Amino acid sequence: MSEILQQVKTPKSELKSRIKRLQAEMAREEVSAVLIMQQADKFYFSGTVQDGVIFVPVDDKPVFMVRKSLKRALEESELEKIVSFKSYGQMPTILKENGIENISRVGLEMDVMPVLIFNKLCSVFSGSEIIDASKYIRKIRMTKSHFEIQTMKKAGEILGKAMKAVPNLLTEGMTEVELAAETEIILRKSGHQGIIRMRKWNQECFYGLVLSGESGAISNYMDAPLGGMGPCPAAPRGASQRKIKKGEPIIIDMVSAYNGYVVDCTRTFYLRKLEEKLVKALNVSLEIQKVTIERFTEGVNLKDIYDMAWNMAKDANLDEYFMGHGDSKVKFLGHGVGLELDELPVIAENFDFILEKNMIVAIEPKFLFPDQGAVGIENTWASKKGRPEKITDIEDNLV
Amino acid sequence: MSEILQQVKTPKSELKSRIKRLQAEMAREEVSAVLIMQQADKFYFSGTVQDGVIFVPVDDKPVFMVRKSLKRALEESELEKIVSFKSYGQMPTILKENGIENISRVGLEMDVMPVLIFNKLCSVFSGSEIIDASKYIRKIRMTKSHFEIQTMKKAGEILGKAMKAVPNLLTEGMTEVELAAETEIILRKSGHQGIIRMRKWNQECFYGLVLSGESGAISNYMDAPLGGMGPCPAAPRGASQRKIKKGEPIIIDMVSAYNGYVVDCTRTFYLRKLEEKLVKALNVSLEIQKVTIERFTEGVNLKDIYDMAWNMAKDANLDEYFMGHGDSKVKFLGHGVGLELDELPVIAENFDFILEKNMIVAIEPKFLFPDQGAVGIENTWASKKGRPEKITDIEDNLV
Repeated sequence: MSEILQQVKTPKSELKSRIKRLQAEMAREEVSAVLIMQQADKFYFSGTVQDGVIFVPVDDKPVFMVRKSLKRALEESELEKIVSFKSYGQMPTILKENGIENISRVGLEMDVMPVLIFNKLCSVFSGSEIIDASKYIRKIRMTKSHFEIQTMKKAGEILGKAMKAVPNLLTEGMTEVELAAETEIILRKSGHQGIIRMRKWNQECFYGLVLSGESGAISNYMDAPLGGMGPCPAAPRGASQRKIKKGEPIIIDMVSAYNGYVVDCTRTFYLRKLEEKLVKALNVSLEIQKVTIERFTEGVNLKDIYDMAWNMAKDANLDEYFMGHGDSKVKFLGHGVGLELDELPVIAENFDFILEKNMIVAIEPKFLFPDQGAVGIENTWASKKGRPEKITDIEDNLV
Repeated sequence: MSEILQQVKTPKSELKSRIKRLQAEMAREEVSAVLIMQQADKFYFSGTVQDGVIFVPVDDKPVFMVRKSLKRALEESELEKIVSFKSYGQMPTILKENGIENISRVGLEMDVMPVLIFNKLCSVFSGSEIIDASKYIRKIRMTKSHFEIQTMKKAGEILGKAMKAVPNLLTEGMTEVELAAETEIILRKSGHQGIIRMRKWNQECFYGLVLSGESGAISNYMDAPLGGMGPCPAAPRGASQRKIKKGEPIIIDMVSAYNGYVVDCTRTFYLRKLEEKLVKALNVSLEIQKVTIERFTEGVNLKDIYDMAWNMAKDANLDEYFMGHGDSKVKFLGHGVGLELDELPVIAENFDFILEKNMIVAIEPKFLFPDQGAVGIENTWASKKGRPEKITDIEDNLV
């Protein structure tokens, strides 16, 4: 086993507790079995992303049927029952061999599973009622264990190295892509895993965003306040060939990923002075972060935090620019992170949700000014009984 | 409009011809309309990936309904009818306004579309029969235009810069990740778009693979001969923390992506001498490439090329190691590339397919030796009436 695997392998106790929590949801909803296939979900319940299907019965140990690589699945996963399989059609036989019969209600990841695969599974389980299991999975994954939080802090450390290097890398006249490349190589060499997973269809993330001046106010297909031109229309997000100038905001929104877990963080930089209006907006975003964090604690309703942030932007006469402008305004202030960048819970308009402890949210008050750019702050936080824990333990002011 | 957009914008004539070819397939199969939503398909038929749905009627101009960003879709796409929309429920009204009624058979991208979105669309088009349109789309996308081939050659140029730099970057004792990071920064600064798209569910690609010694023989969840340990179990593919040694093969399999289009290329490097057996296998892979390319021409059956390559490996007593070993052997020699890394056609076992001109395939004869690593070659080729055109115009021997 490689050294890194020894360090990061998901412990058996973690897998057991995750499966137990899923089975509790299943029992409540009278679901006989759930099939786990998507990369992030598979990693969560097995500790590996090797190609296969985890069959979780409501009252027995899961059977992990692996197509490729079986050898690596056996090395990487602490699940007890790991067997080889080649096609979906073999599943009923394998399940029978493992003493599993009478599957009346089967849950599938219907929010992410392509229709043609779903149709195949429907014919394999033609005697069963098929339901959507994604709501149970997403609910369970919201609450993070100590092991998960420690992994996310490591992702935060990696991110800190790159963010702290920015003031030394940044020079007038370099392009956004050049600055992005220089920060990305730091992330990569520090242990960033490369791939960043998102759950929602057609959403994509490559490292993060390095946006200068008006780039910061350009939106795109993503459900996020910041966008940027990107290198080309086929990848219209993030750094472009635009040259960085003095006196404009340079906003860097970076995503780190370490052994599956992502954390998200934004800092605003500039060369020489920023215009008064932008400095004021940056200070308001820091103030919103401060007040939000004071309230981000077990028992709070997230919708109230959202409303409060909006009122603060209004009181500062900056609501027109808060979290976007015009058509491209988004209606959230924060998003859950974990194995995916777009997890639950969110801090959003009408998202009526009582926060529990150990939920991890990236909170990102930002202001976007057309033609001038974006300023703001973002950190990833773990909710606690009292004050939240800062997962991206990096100074807020790096200029 | 940005400078880069002017250079790479998909011309109106391209979009027209693509839609015309789709409509011809639709007419043949009596499909009234096809909805295009997935990133790569959307880019192909509109020139943008902004969030929206392209509704293609069998006998009229497409209506592109855009959610976000409408402004950018209008800038980036040469489609004529681009309208704003907020939810799927609005579609029937928008279509009526555009004179489109009587939709009896609707095609959706059922190979990639998540079930919950499919279910929503089924209720929006509850009076229509729903069929899978992905087979038509994938078929049309196989044949590349001059514009597409030129874009892919540009992707090849970017890749050439990184590959040619490897001999100067490579030193004993550096880790695979360090070498990967140094080549990735060259790709990124040269115009690589970052994101690499794959069609098949749960398949992922981040730049490419830098594998030394036994890493070259480690397989994983991907449907590919090479895998590698990767940085961690959550991203178990590509470069790891392994230190590069003298006398072992260092195989670099890199994917470039420029304005949507990907090309794929592999070179084998080493510090000092390689063992006789590995040198022989590398030479056989070059010989297989040579003979394959002679046959890779309009009218050939791709299955025959596959069989021929296998026979060459057998004749050299190397079939045990060809395209993997043991359980992890793959049953193809080449794969189509374009807007996605896993396009059609493939050169594979029993893939009975007559090659037409302007189809682009990455052909990758490789040998994997357990505990020793991998050697081989890969280039991306465009089929022609005669000899194919090399899209990855890089010397085969860079050592």
